[in-house]
Amino acid sequence: MTSGLLRLKRVVFGAPYPTQRLEHERLGKATALAVLSSDAISSVAYATEQILIVLAVLGTAALGYVVPVSVVIVALLVLVGLSYRQTVFAYPSGGGSYTVAKDNLGVRAGLLAAAALLTDYVLTVAVSISGGIAALTSAYPALLPWRVALCVVAVALLALMNLRGVRESGIVFSVPTYAFIVMMLALIVAGVWQALSGAAPAPAPAAARADAVSLAMHGLGPVSGLALVYLLLRGFAEGCSAMTGTEAISNGVTVFRPPASRNAATTLGWMVALLAVFFLGTSWLAQRYQVLPGLTETVLSQIGRHVLGGGLPYYVLQASTFLILVLAANTAFADFPRLGSILAHDRYMPRQLAARGDRLAFSNGIVVLAAVATMLVVVFRGDTHALIPLYAVGVFVCFTLSQAGMVVHWRRCREPGWRWRMALNGVGAAATALVVLVQIGTKFTEGAWIVVLIIPSFIVLLLGIHRHYERFASEIRYTGQAPLMFLHHTVLVPVAGITKATASALVYATTISEDVRALYVETEPGDTDALRARWEAWDIGVPLVVLPSPFRSVLRPLVEYVDGMQDRHEADLISVVVPEIVPRRWWEHLLHNKTAFYIKALFLFRQNVIVTAVPFHLGSRPRWDAGHDAAAGPV
Amino acid sequence: MTSGLLRLKRVVFGAPYPTQRLEHERLGKATALAVLSSDAISSVAYATEQILIVLAVLGTAALGYVVPVSVVIVALLVLVGLSYRQTVFAYPSGGGSYTVAKDNLGVRAGLLAAAALLTDYVLTVAVSISGGIAALTSAYPALLPWRVALCVVAVALLALMNLRGVRESGIVFSVPTYAFIVMMLALIVAGVWQALSGAAPAPAPAAARADAVSLAMHGLGPVSGLALVYLLLRGFAEGCSAMTGTEAISNGVTVFRPPASRNAATTLGWMVALLAVFFLGTSWLAQRYQVLPGLTETVLSQIGRHVLGGGLPYYVLQASTFLILVLAANTAFADFPRLGSILAHDRYMPRQLAARGDRLAFSNGIVVLAAVATMLVVVFRGDTHALIPLYAVGVFVCFTLSQAGMVVHWRRCREPGWRWRMALNGVGAAATALVVLVQIGTKFTEGAWIVVLIIPSFIVLLLGIHRHYERFASEIRYTGQAPLMFLHHTVLVPVAGITKATASALVYATTISEDVRALYVETEPGDTDALRARWEAWDIGVPLVVLPSPFRSVLRPLVEYVDGMQDRHEADLISVVVPEIVPRRWWEHLLHNKTAFYIKALFLFRQNVIVTAVPFHLGSRPRWDAGHDAAAGPV
Repeated sequence: MTSGLLRLKRVVFGAPYPTQRLEHERLGKATALAVLSSDAISSVAYATEQILIVLAVLGTAALGYVVPVSVVIVALLVLVGLSYRQTVFAYPSGGGSYTVAKDNLGVRAGLLAAAALLTDYVLTVAVSISGGIAALTSAYPALLPWRVALCVVAVALLALMNLRGVRESGIVFSVPTYAFIVMMLALIVAGVWQALSGAAPAPAPAAARADAVSLAMHGLGPVSGLALVYLLLRGFAEGCSAMTGTEAISNGVTVFRPPASRNAATTLGWMVALLAVFFLGTSWLAQRYQVLPGLTETVLSQIGRHVLGGGLPYYVLQASTFLILVLAANTAFADFPRLGSILAHDRYMPRQLAARGDRLAFSNGIVVLAAVATMLVVVFRGDTHALIPLYAVGVFVCFTLSQAGMVVHWRRCREPGWRWRMALNGVGAAATALVVLVQIGTKFTEGAWIVVLIIPSFIVLLLGIHRHYERFASEIRYTGQAPLMFLHHTVLVPVAGITKATASALVYATTISEDVRALYVETEPGDTDALRARWEAWDIGVPLVVLPSPFRSVLRPLVEYVDGMQDRHEADLISVVVPEIVPRRWWEHLLHNKTAFYIKALFLFRQNVIVTAVPFHLGSRPRWDAGHDAAAGPV
Repeated sequence: MTSGLLRLKRVVFGAPYPTQRLEHERLGKATALAVLSSDAISSVAYATEQILIVLAVLGTAALGYVVPVSVVIVALLVLVGLSYRQTVFAYPSGGGSYTVAKDNLGVRAGLLAAAALLTDYVLTVAVSISGGIAALTSAYPALLPWRVALCVVAVALLALMNLRGVRESGIVFSVPTYAFIVMMLALIVAGVWQALSGAAPAPAPAAARADAVSLAMHGLGPVSGLALVYLLLRGFAEGCSAMTGTEAISNGVTVFRPPASRNAATTLGWMVALLAVFFLGTSWLAQRYQVLPGLTETVLSQIGRHVLGGGLPYYVLQASTFLILVLAANTAFADFPRLGSILAHDRYMPRQLAARGDRLAFSNGIVVLAAVATMLVVVFRGDTHALIPLYAVGVFVCFTLSQAGMVVHWRRCREPGWRWRMALNGVGAAATALVVLVQIGTKFTEGAWIVVLIIPSFIVLLLGIHRHYERFASEIRYTGQAPLMFLHHTVLVPVAGITKATASALVYATTISEDVRALYVETEPGDTDALRARWEAWDIGVPLVVLPSPFRSVLRPLVEYVDGMQDRHEADLISVVVPEIVPRRWWEHLLHNKTAFYIKALFLFRQNVIVTAVPFHLGSRPRWDAGHDAAAGPV
């Protein structure tokens, strides 16, 4: 049975890797771009759309604000990108926000960054998978009813791939990422050319599209100046979801081939450039072609259908959008377990998260992430629009802490050029801090309150775990010299009769101590005399103690006997040796009392009492019984 | 925590009773009639109705057949009653069908009786509870939507009462049973008087009653002779549900005060007389007042409303019907666990069913019965009409086997008058065997097939359990003399460092053997040298063995080491002593690896390897560490 499970595990996860293989699991720049940048690049699939949804109340005027808002976001993106470029060089061993914040701003800032990041990794999986499935259902509306199920399956497949290990992931992820990059470039070039050359087909009037969240229907027309400012800020806040994932490369410097920092910085530059072009291009095309967010079709799908026509190129765009979004979730599958293992190593998370599995992946972290993300997807019915207000708050908290940490770092180390580096990081920190305030202020009631609630609770949890481990370490630390030995060791063997199981336990008991006593709990007084007579005849040198049990409990008299011995200081150490029947088949367990288990549980919290179950395997012949055959002869 | 649970248990179930109290838990005749006869007597609440439902296709002609069919059933009842009277005297220690059939007809017949009885006890609970709730909803139709929930609560309350022990049950059950007897006598006397004196109000025409399964609507009018015979046989078969419970008294002879047999026989006579009068009376009144089975009101409720008017007497009738039906289920709660314990004692059922609980009740049997009955009630939506076709098949199988067994009994013992006694039992057996055939023949497709399927499967299960216990007994039997002792005992202690938990385990290990080895599994090669140096400095006389683990598994290298020792015959017996952390709070368990548990599971199926967990209680000071304080002085 066990070996069957093991074989299944091998088929699903592959054969185990030795630890020394770890060094070789590094990625080249092109592969690393695919694995680590998909989160950032793929956000063009929903960021423009999210701005449009917020601005929809403005009516047709909304389209005029999309490009300006996008330009502000891209400016911020470039600033943050430059800021992180400095981190990549300063922290070649992986400059995650947690590490940078903890090193420079103290433990509490580090934990705030960690809690914010973990929350956002979970949301990355939920948002990206939901967005990917939305790309799929935009092309094939017949799949709409299966949306949630498709999301759950996608999360499960991702988890499985990551449990198999990093290198295969790299190969699997390159093709769709580069397909998406090519298709987006083609879409933008073709779209801009068509628009400027006048070759663009006329956009369909908004009112004719029944499925669209029609601007005409929802538009309030002109609004007051203050309301306009609020709407633009909120649109900006939701559009900032385009910037999520920018930190992935600096967190993951160690997965790059050496020279890791240089390779990571180059890749980071490419990623920011691609994201900026795609995001601006999409927003410009949406404005130009008067695309409205729809209930059943994404904005990007509408642009694609419009520019590329309804043929093969459109379907390739949708397929690659779907795939890169599914892969974007993979960034979180790389980073969440890694951060979890760092926190576990620092004793802020359960130590099980620090262990690498058979395939060198941090298996437990992968499983936890998949479970929580699945829950989110199910609760929010796989709806990207409902999830995005929760998103990006955590990321901007980290941006701020990370860059603020870098400011302190430069002040301390005073390397050449530290002044302008500090200034760059300082400006970045101030800008992103402002964005956090805007995010919380404009999205609070839309769902950001959940994140505002969860992050502090998370910190309290991390601190509680840390307190436990610290206390544990101090309690278990042993500084004394050779321990004292016990003077007197008594072994008690509960017996229900003379059987092979009893004999096994008694043989073991007499092996480990001179002072062995058999205890018989008398639940049926009539049976005692017969047992006593058999026992005397058996004559194995172990006294039989009879414990009356008027209430028929098998366990209570044992506890009372041990209590009595300890009260009278009769023994330094008491072992209770219990015969345990090991059946051949699982259902046979139901036919036997689990007395050994209950006795163990009963004495678990008692000092200086140790319970040992001596297994008796049904259908086997114990070694101590081997000699009797010969003695009995060939009868 | 444990003591809190214990206190809760005391409040719910009461303080435990000593075994010697068992003798005093006997019942007088009047109380025994209440406890054991409620099943039989209460069946008047549904038996007449069930006949009417079957005959409904005959149209108004149906009413003319109800009384004749009832008369046949009562004749059969008297015959079976006389038959069982003989059993009560022949088996003063409890003449259940299982015992009688096994003693006289062999084990297989006994098991058939047992399987049939257990099935029927479960159905008794389901049918009676459903019928009781139907009596309630007849009076208060507003409760109809809560039917299933009410059934479940009633089963749970019954189980609870039975877990508290027998005597309280007797007191609780007498009042409603006698209330029902009084109300039924009053109903029949008043109904017959009104009918014969012409004082009866005119019955409402059938068509006016919208909720009734109207005869006019369903009636086919005249049917062929063969179809009529079939319908009458089926009506008879379903009406035989009136006879269920007749065997309860002879199964439960031992609960009577001495002289038990005489008291039981008298009580049996009373029970049969009451049942006969009630059943015939109800059928006659149904015919006389043209009562039709309704969807929302029972037949008995309609008769009651008609004869007693809509006032207080009617509500008392319904209340006592409800209560006696709930109590009827209690007959099964007395008999099912008792039969279960007999079967467990004979090794046909899990031995857990043979143990009396704190309150001297067979707790496990009560819990099993309640669970299965609850399932039935939920699956059949608390609908008596759907459940009854399954019912009574098992009971008549038992009647037949029990009486056939008595025939053999009389032939063997040849007491005075054995000839006519044998003849009486023989006629009874033949009659009930015929009824079994009629039952299966007419109700097969209505649900009886389920019972025809379950009873043989049950027998296979009982035989399988028996085979296991027999084999177990022969495998565990020990007939040899004093066992051989082990020559060489090696103790292995897996260590992860030098901690108090490790020291505890090592102290225990050195107490139980001279040959102790510490095993260090090297998952991080860098840490080994430091540990080795500390170990040498510690100098406790236990060698440190380092086991490399390139695949990072903590467990596999241990298994391989033990395998190697056994292959080279280095030890007769190997103990693996594992330190086990015992945290103060339950959630702290999540923060520690369950290594001790996994090691135990790993070696459970291996011969001559015994795993002992040495608990280390966080926050405690182990005894072996006590001396160091004094040595260290008041620093």
